[in-house]
Amino acid sequence: MEIQALAQAHPEHWRQAAALRTLALDAVAAANSGHTGMPLGMADIATVLFGKHLKFDAAHPDWPDRDRFVLSNGHGSMLLYGLLYLTGSPDVSLDEIKRFRQLGSVTAGHPEYGAARGIETTTGPLGQGLANAVGMAIAEEMLRARFGKRLVDHRTWVFAGDGCLMEGVSQEAITLAGRQALSRLVVFWDHNGITIDGAVALADRTDQIKRFESAGWSVYDCDGHDPEDIDRVIGAARASDTPTLIACRTHIGYGTSAQDTAKAHGALTETTLIDDAKAAYGWDRKPFDIPPDLKAQWEEIGRRGAAERLAWEERRAALSDARRREFARVLAGEPPKRLSARIKALKKQISDEAPKLATRKGSEHALEVINPVMPETVGGSADLTGSNNTKTGDLGEFSPENRKGRYLHFGIREHGMAAAMNGLALHGGLRPYGGTFLVFSDYARAAIRLSSLMGMPVTYVLTHDSIGLGEDGPTHQPVEQLASLRAQPNLNVFRPADTVETAEAWELALTATATPSVLALSRQGLPTLRTDHKGVNLTARGAYVIADSEARRRAILLATGSEVAIAVEARAILEAEGIGTRVVSMPCWEIFEEQDEAYRKRILPGGPVRVAVEAAIRFGWDRWLYGERGKRGKSGFVGMHGFGASAPADELYRHFGITAEAVAEKVRTLL
Amino acid sequence: MEIQALAQAHPEHWRQAAALRTLALDAVAAANSGHTGMPLGMADIATVLFGKHLKFDAAHPDWPDRDRFVLSNGHGSMLLYGLLYLTGSPDVSLDEIKRFRQLGSVTAGHPEYGAARGIETTTGPLGQGLANAVGMAIAEEMLRARFGKRLVDHRTWVFAGDGCLMEGVSQEAITLAGRQALSRLVVFWDHNGITIDGAVALADRTDQIKRFESAGWSVYDCDGHDPEDIDRVIGAARASDTPTLIACRTHIGYGTSAQDTAKAHGALTETTLIDDAKAAYGWDRKPFDIPPDLKAQWEEIGRRGAAERLAWEERRAALSDARRREFARVLAGEPPKRLSARIKALKKQISDEAPKLATRKGSEHALEVINPVMPETVGGSADLTGSNNTKTGDLGEFSPENRKGRYLHFGIREHGMAAAMNGLALHGGLRPYGGTFLVFSDYARAAIRLSSLMGMPVTYVLTHDSIGLGEDGPTHQPVEQLASLRAQPNLNVFRPADTVETAEAWELALTATATPSVLALSRQGLPTLRTDHKGVNLTARGAYVIADSEARRRAILLATGSEVAIAVEARAILEAEGIGTRVVSMPCWEIFEEQDEAYRKRILPGGPVRVAVEAAIRFGWDRWLYGERGKRGKSGFVGMHGFGASAPADELYRHFGITAEAVAEKVRTLL
Repeated sequence: MEIQALAQAHPEHWRQAAALRTLALDAVAAANSGHTGMPLGMADIATVLFGKHLKFDAAHPDWPDRDRFVLSNGHGSMLLYGLLYLTGSPDVSLDEIKRFRQLGSVTAGHPEYGAARGIETTTGPLGQGLANAVGMAIAEEMLRARFGKRLVDHRTWVFAGDGCLMEGVSQEAITLAGRQALSRLVVFWDHNGITIDGAVALADRTDQIKRFESAGWSVYDCDGHDPEDIDRVIGAARASDTPTLIACRTHIGYGTSAQDTAKAHGALTETTLIDDAKAAYGWDRKPFDIPPDLKAQWEEIGRRGAAERLAWEERRAALSDARRREFARVLAGEPPKRLSARIKALKKQISDEAPKLATRKGSEHALEVINPVMPETVGGSADLTGSNNTKTGDLGEFSPENRKGRYLHFGIREHGMAAAMNGLALHGGLRPYGGTFLVFSDYARAAIRLSSLMGMPVTYVLTHDSIGLGEDGPTHQPVEQLASLRAQPNLNVFRPADTVETAEAWELALTATATPSVLALSRQGLPTLRTDHKGVNLTARGAYVIADSEARRRAILLATGSEVAIAVEARAILEAEGIGTRVVSMPCWEIFEEQDEAYRKRILPGGPVRVAVEAAIRFGWDRWLYGERGKRGKSGFVGMHGFGASAPADELYRHFGITAEAVAEKVRTLL
Repeated sequence: MEIQALAQAHPEHWRQAAALRTLALDAVAAANSGHTGMPLGMADIATVLFGKHLKFDAAHPDWPDRDRFVLSNGHGSMLLYGLLYLTGSPDVSLDEIKRFRQLGSVTAGHPEYGAARGIETTTGPLGQGLANAVGMAIAEEMLRARFGKRLVDHRTWVFAGDGCLMEGVSQEAITLAGRQALSRLVVFWDHNGITIDGAVALADRTDQIKRFESAGWSVYDCDGHDPEDIDRVIGAARASDTPTLIACRTHIGYGTSAQDTAKAHGALTETTLIDDAKAAYGWDRKPFDIPPDLKAQWEEIGRRGAAERLAWEERRAALSDARRREFARVLAGEPPKRLSARIKALKKQISDEAPKLATRKGSEHALEVINPVMPETVGGSADLTGSNNTKTGDLGEFSPENRKGRYLHFGIREHGMAAAMNGLALHGGLRPYGGTFLVFSDYARAAIRLSSLMGMPVTYVLTHDSIGLGEDGPTHQPVEQLASLRAQPNLNVFRPADTVETAEAWELALTATATPSVLALSRQGLPTLRTDHKGVNLTARGAYVIADSEARRRAILLATGSEVAIAVEARAILEAEGIGTRVVSMPCWEIFEEQDEAYRKRILPGGPVRVAVEAAIRFGWDRWLYGERGKRGKSGFVGMHGFGASAPADELYRHFGITAEAVAEKVRTLL
C-alpha cells in the first residue's frame, strides 16, 4: 500500500507506527550506527500486534502469563526499544532511547536479555530467537498442562527476517515446532526480499511458504503495511491448531529514499534522508519528540492487558497455599529442598556399593533420583537417548497428545535442541537438560554461547567424552571440545571422575542460578573412586585432593573424568617406588578458579612436579601446570596431541600413551 | 518388494547386493561394533548406482573426472568399504575389511578421507557429507566452465539418511544447491522411517518431498529395493536441470529379524540373527567368503569406466602443454610461482605508504593481488561481503547463468558455507575462502573441525575479530573464539597486526597443503607497523620481534592483531621510563609452536617479565606467559575477562582496560 493511502485510511494506526519509525530513525542517527531498515519495515506489524493482540501489561513486564514477544531479527532492536518505551516500560525511558548503543545503556546494539524487562531473549545471532521461541512455546504447553489454563494461557510471537530463515537452526526449530504442533507459536516473516549483500535471490530462492507447510505449519500471507490485512491474518493464526507463519510483504526502510535496498539494512544517518522520510510520514517533530496525545495512545495500549493481569493475579491468589508456593518456586528457579538429601543418599549408596559404571550411566542414576523430586526438569536428547542416558522412567514423552510429558525427542538437531533449551529456561518454570555426544556440541556452539551470555542455567549432558568411545573414530572423539567449552565465559564444564562426582555435578548444575553447565561423561565404565562417603559436595570446590601422598610429596597428578582413575593407579605405582604422589581431581576448572587463593594453593602447593592427565589436548592446562607456583617446578602432560583414531577404547588409550605407567614414567623423568 | 520375489526377479542384482550385505554383517560381527542396518538397507541402491551409473574406474580412484560418491550417512561405512573392495580398489583389500574398526586399518568406524582413495570425504557427523557434495558439485560446474566438458564432466551422488536431513546444515546446503541449480547433484534419501531413538515420527514429521521442492529440487520416489525402479529414477535424475532428491523407500536391516527397528541401526552381532539373514539372502558361504564368479562380476563393474577413463586420458594428453600443466597445477593444489613476488610487492607498497587500514581491508588488498594470479581461488561470504571484504573486482559472481564466476553469495549460512568449502577443496582444482564475522565461526564449528581433520587447505576470513567492532555488542564480539579455534588441532589461526602481516598470512594460507587457516581480521583501522620492508615472510615463523628493547630488556610484551599496536605504544611509554621492552608479534601460535626450541627461546628468552595483550580472554596464553622459561619470571595479561558490551570501540577498549597505559602499568607492577 502506498504511504499516503495508508496514512489516510488508518490515521491513528499510521501515527502510532510513525512514532516507532521516527524513534528508530532518530536513535540510529544519534548513535551513528545501528539498523534502520527493519524497524521501518515492521513497524506496522508491531503496531497491530501490540495494539490489538499481544497479551501484556507494560507496567508489569514480569507477569508470568504474558505473551512472549521475540525479536529474532535482533539487529532491528530499536523497534523493540521503541515499543517498550512507548507502551510505558518501567525500564526503558526516553533517555535510554537517546543512549542507544552507548556504554551502560539498556538499549544495546542488539537486545540483551537482562538489560530491561520486556527483552525476552538475547538476539542478533540469526535464527536463535526463532528457535528460543519454540522452547518458550513448549514451556507454555508443559506448564499449562501442569498448572492449568487459568494460570498458564499465553502465546509466543516472533519477528524473523530472511537471515533467520536461511540459518540451518531455523529448519531444526520449525520442524520440531511442527512435530509438536505448537499452535500458540506465530512467526511474522519480514518478507522484504533484501539482505546485506543485496537481493535475497542472490543467495536464496526458497519457497518459504511451501517449506513451512512441509514442516506442518499453517501459512498466511499479508500486506505487512496494511493494518487490516495484518489483523486479519493474526486472527487466523490465533485459530490455528498448528504453528503459524505469516509471510508479511514489507518494504525495508519503508518511506525512505533507501527503501527496498540493501543500504536500508544498516544505519541510515544522512540528515536529508531522515528529513525526507519524516516528511513522507507527515511527521514534523524534533528528534525523539513524541506528541503527548500519541504517547498517551501508546500507554493506553500498554495498559490493555492490565485488567486481564489483575484477574490472573486473583486466580493465582485463590490457589491453595501449596500450589501457589510450588508455582512460585518453579518460576523462581528454586530447587526443591529435598534435592540435596536425595543426592547425598545416592552418593552414599554409590560409595558403599562402589560399582564400575560409565559416568553417563551414573548420570542416569542421578536423574532417577532428581526427576521425581523436581517436576520442573525437562529432559531430552538429540536422538541419542539410549547413549546419553537422559531418560528416566517417570518422565513421560512430550507430544501433542501428552503435554504432561517431560521428555523431548529433539531429533538429530543439536543446535535446535540447545536453542530450545534456552527458550525453555527463558520462559521460566522449567529446568531443561539435553544430551548429545560431546563432540557434537560443535553443532550447537552458537546456542551454547547464548546460554552463557544470558546466564541460563541449562544443562548439557555430553557423553562419549573422549577416545574412550572407541571404534567410532576421530569424527566422534572429542579432543578439543573440553578446551573450547572451558574457554567460554560463564559456563561450568564438569568432567566427573565417577558416579559420586557425577551426582555432585548434577546438584551444582541444578542449583546454579545464572550459569549453564556441561556434564562431560564417559561412555566406558569407570571404577568408583569416592568409596569413602562424605556428605559435603567436594565438586563444589572445583578441584580437591582425591588421594594424597603417603611418602614425602614429590609429585602432584592433576586429572579429570576418566583419567582420574588412571592417575590414582599411577600414584600407586609411584608410591610403591617411594615417590610420594598426590592426585587432584579437577571436575570443574571454572569453580576451582573462583576459590580463594589459599584454597587453591592448599590443593596445588608449589614444589612437587605436576603432571596433568586428560584424554584431550593440552590447551588450557598450562594454567594449572605453571600458574600460581611459589617456585618453578617441572611439569608435564599426558593426553592427546591431535585427533583420535578408530579402534577399541583400551587399545586407543595404549596407542596414545594415556596409561598409568606412562604417567608414572612422565613423573620419573621430571624428578 | 519381498526378498524372495526380488531375488527371483533379479537374480544377478540380488547376488551382487547380497555380497555387500554379507560383508557388512560379517565385518560388524567381527568388530563387534558398527552399524549394520544402513548397508543392508541401501545395498540395492548402491548396486544399481555402481553397476550402471556411477562413472568410475576402480583401479584409478584418483581419476579427476570420476563421479563423486559421498556417503553422508557415514555410520554405514561398511557399505562403502564393501563397494571399494568388491570393485577392485587398490587400497581396500579383504584383509582391511576383516580389520574393520581396528587400529591402523583403512576401514575406520566412519569413512576417513585419506585412509583409502575412493573415500571422497570424511563423514559421520550428520549432514556434512551432503553439504560437502554441494561444494563438489559447484566445483564441477566451475571447472567445467574453465576447462571444458571434454575434461570435466561428472556428477556427484550422495547417500543420506534421516539424520542428515534433520540437521540444520542440510537446509543450508539444499537451499544453496537449489539456488545454484546444481543439476549434477543427486541425493538418495534412505527413507526407512527409523532413527536411533525409534520411529522418525517421534521427532520429525516433515514432508521431505515438499521441503526439497521448496528449495528448487526435483524429487522422485522409488522402491529402494527394486533395481528397476531405482534405475528408472536415476535415469530421470540424470535428465533433470535441477538438483534431485530420490526418496528411496527402504527397510533398515533388510532381511534380518531386526528389520524396520531402531535396533538394526547399530551393530547386529548375534550369530542366529546373522545366520537367519544369510539364509534369507540365499547365502551359504563362510564369513567374508565371496564366490569368485561374483567377485568377478563386481570387478567387471569396477572396470566399467576404464575405456571412458582412457579416452579422457587421451583428451588430456591432447591439450596444449600450457593447458595441461595448468590443469595439473590446480589439481595438485600448487600455488602459481608468481604468487610470492606479488605478495612481496604488496608488502613493499604497504610498508612504503604505511596506511592506517583495518586488516579486513588489508585482506581485500591482498586478495586484489592474489585473485588475478590464482584462477583457482573461489571467494565468498555468508552475506557479509562488504564487511568481510572478500570480493574483488575480477571474480565475477557464480550463478547458473555464469558458471565462470568465482564469487559465491553463500547466503546467511555459515555452516553450509564451511561445509561447501570443504567440498570445493575435496573435489580438487579450486582453493576456496569464505567470510563471516569471527564470532559466527561458532555456527560453522562442526564443518571447520572437518577442514582440520581432513587437512583441507581452505581459508576462513573471519572479520570483526574483537570488541573493536563496537556497538553491535556482545552477541557480535568474539572473546573466546580465538582460544576455541586455537584449541583445534591442525588449524592455523592467524591474527595479523597490520596489512603487511595480513599479506604474509594470506601467502601462508594459500601455500598450505594440508592445513586450513583462519584469518582473524579487525573491523577498525590499524596503523602499519611493518614500515621497514622485508622480503622474508616473518609470519612464517609464527611469532617474531616486531620492536626490540633499547634500554636493558626488562619486559616482553606479547600481542596479536590489533593489540600489537597497543603493545608498541606501551613499549614507547616504558622505554621513555628506561624500562627496556621488547614487543613480540604472535600472528600464529601454531606455527610458532612448530619452530625449534632455539628460535622460540630467542624470541621469548627467560628473565624479563612477560605481559600478553589481546582483546580476548586469557585462556591459552599461559602457554606463552609461563612456558619454556629458564627461571620463573612474573607475568600478566591485559585483555578481556568475560563477554563484551555495546558501545563505540574506543570506549570499549578504555572500559575494559586494554590500553597502552594499562599495559605499561601492568609491567610496572610486575617489575
